[in-house]
Amino acid sequence: MNTLDACIAAITPPDADMRAAAEQRLRDQARPAGSLGMMEPIAARLAGIAGKMDVRLDKKVIVTCAGDHGIVEEGVSLFPAEVTPQMVYNFVNGGASINVLGRHVGATVCVADIGVNHTFPADLPIFHKKVRFGTANFAREPAMSRAEAVRCLEAGIEIVDQLMAQEPLDLLGTGDMGIGNTTPSTAIIATFSELSVDELTGRGTGIDDAMLTHKTIVIEKALEFHRPDPADPLDVLAKVGGCEIGALGGLVLGAAKHGVPVVCDGLISTAGALLACELAPQAKDYLFASHRSVEIGHRFMHERLSLEPLLDLGFRLGEGTGAALAMKLLDAATRILAEIKTFAEVSIGDAQ
Amino acid sequence: MNTLDACIAAITPPDADMRAAAEQRLRDQARPAGSLGMMEPIAARLAGIAGKMDVRLDKKVIVTCAGDHGIVEEGVSLFPAEVTPQMVYNFVNGGASINVLGRHVGATVCVADIGVNHTFPADLPIFHKKVRFGTANFAREPAMSRAEAVRCLEAGIEIVDQLMAQEPLDLLGTGDMGIGNTTPSTAIIATFSELSVDELTGRGTGIDDAMLTHKTIVIEKALEFHRPDPADPLDVLAKVGGCEIGALGGLVLGAAKHGVPVVCDGLISTAGALLACELAPQAKDYLFASHRSVEIGHRFMHERLSLEPLLDLGFRLGEGTGAALAMKLLDAATRILAEIKTFAEVSIGDAQ
Repeated sequence: MNTLDACIAAITPPDADMRAAAEQRLRDQARPAGSLGMMEPIAARLAGIAGKMDVRLDKKVIVTCAGDHGIVEEGVSLFPAEVTPQMVYNFVNGGASINVLGRHVGATVCVADIGVNHTFPADLPIFHKKVRFGTANFAREPAMSRAEAVRCLEAGIEIVDQLMAQEPLDLLGTGDMGIGNTTPSTAIIATFSELSVDELTGRGTGIDDAMLTHKTIVIEKALEFHRPDPADPLDVLAKVGGCEIGALGGLVLGAAKHGVPVVCDGLISTAGALLACELAPQAKDYLFASHRSVEIGHRFMHERLSLEPLLDLGFRLGEGTGAALAMKLLDAATRILAEIKTFAEVSIGDAQ
Repeated sequence: MNTLDACIAAITPPDADMRAAAEQRLRDQARPAGSLGMMEPIAARLAGIAGKMDVRLDKKVIVTCAGDHGIVEEGVSLFPAEVTPQMVYNFVNGGASINVLGRHVGATVCVADIGVNHTFPADLPIFHKKVRFGTANFAREPAMSRAEAVRCLEAGIEIVDQLMAQEPLDLLGTGDMGIGNTTPSTAIIATFSELSVDELTGRGTGIDDAMLTHKTIVIEKALEFHRPDPADPLDVLAKVGGCEIGALGGLVLGAAKHGVPVVCDGLISTAGALLACELAPQAKDYLFASHRSVEIGHRFMHERLSLEPLLDLGFRLGEGTGAALAMKLLDAATRILAEIKTFAEVSIGDAQ
């Protein structure tokens, strides 16, 4: 059995009894039932995952996976591909958006090269997991081979294994960097949702109407050409995916295997999470959606994953920025469950 | 000039030049323009208020104002009025939802009695600002006199003055406790918006369809009876308001006077903020909306205030719980502005 299949086979469900006990405690708290909305089911899910009522999400890590995309040759992005490695260096130097928001929520930010078209120095403190120097242009040929798709997923799994070996994680966040990567992500959701590409395609980093129309046509043509099989997620990843997208799926699978909750970021991270859950639906039990991006395809991913994102701040940045902010809300959910007293504990009359 | 008029006269606008400089820095940061959505205008507003680029919201206080409501005699609420003082004690003992979320975001929680129908011990560590032992039943008579309405607003102003005298605040949050208080809050937004009560009335702590219909009729009849004048916010507060709602407005006015940003919580806190901004539109420059409550009237308050709430988590609790969670997002906005490097600072190619 390869690393991918072994990981999927090793995912076990959270503790349903603990989750039910948490739901009961939430109902018994000295406040109107259900009055803390979305925080309540999230708190109960986290209790089920941790197997205890007083969950502490102390050790937080965000892994930002980077890759380049041959499809940028088609003129689908506003920024040149050279920005991908430049941003990797920016992450390592601590000056990027994700570094700022990671620090803000007490999360360590790790960067992983899965498919950047650049040779990084071997001593650069990143996860060196390069599968290819960028994908092929999937307007003309598959983005990568099926074997490479498996290696991308396995890269994500291995990263979680390595992190857990260093120090057990309480919460994992996912993030992406890759110029052009809203295009494969949109192709992925189009394949699984069977909605029209037109309904799903967004402006990425801010393209204009003409480029948006062009991007839509590029994706439509590629899907017609490759006909990726939605019943075979590896086929989808290989034909119209991206290296970092595969690894982002692997992170979800790895986290699920280790029983660690994982919060996914925007369109690209969620494309990875979607691939993971198409491969292993049981991984969904460990997955949380951080935010709803401006990218229109994102909401259809959440719909397919039956996840309600915590935030809707009009973000369209990636890197893990939405995941970082959501981490603080997951923390809040754990405090709500553990610390708000019940009616019995404070002797206040129940609803009449 | 009374305390209220003096406060309103003393509100000065934020630093527009600093705000513009902040907007420029946000545009220059090494990420697609506008990619951090709502966080960007909020960061710029906070810079304008603080008069500097590196804003620190270290000293945070949430003031939870409590009051009782004669209108509960009409059977508009699920919980009995006795719960209001019980919850005040619960706040003081630190076991309530707002205590938990206040601790979570590093905010001090203060409780203020503005109109609870209970005599609290003089040494209870709360702000003792009682204007009345609960409002009158506004189905039959004005909730309070015009002079009392002024005193409620002034109670909020005085609380901010006292807090500032102890230790300068960087951020104020507002919260409420008062069984029955969605009813006056709904009457207030109905008066200002001139929308039908039917469109605005929600379920409060969770009333059923029959009680909802009844509550709607109670509010409709009261508005017909009193005809509060939307051009005269004191008339609105006196006739169909509540003591804590007035004080919540006073908190906004006091914060604006001291140049302190203030984040308002749910339906009741926002009703107070709305009254404040109807009295002194310039106070709006200091006001931030934390979350969109399940209460339908809340979105019309935000509309009238031209505020976009940061969170939409399905909360319907009050106490300041939404304001608490939003405080961490306001902190994040300050870090985004101050810490994310510009393209020039990291030498990354700009968009082509």
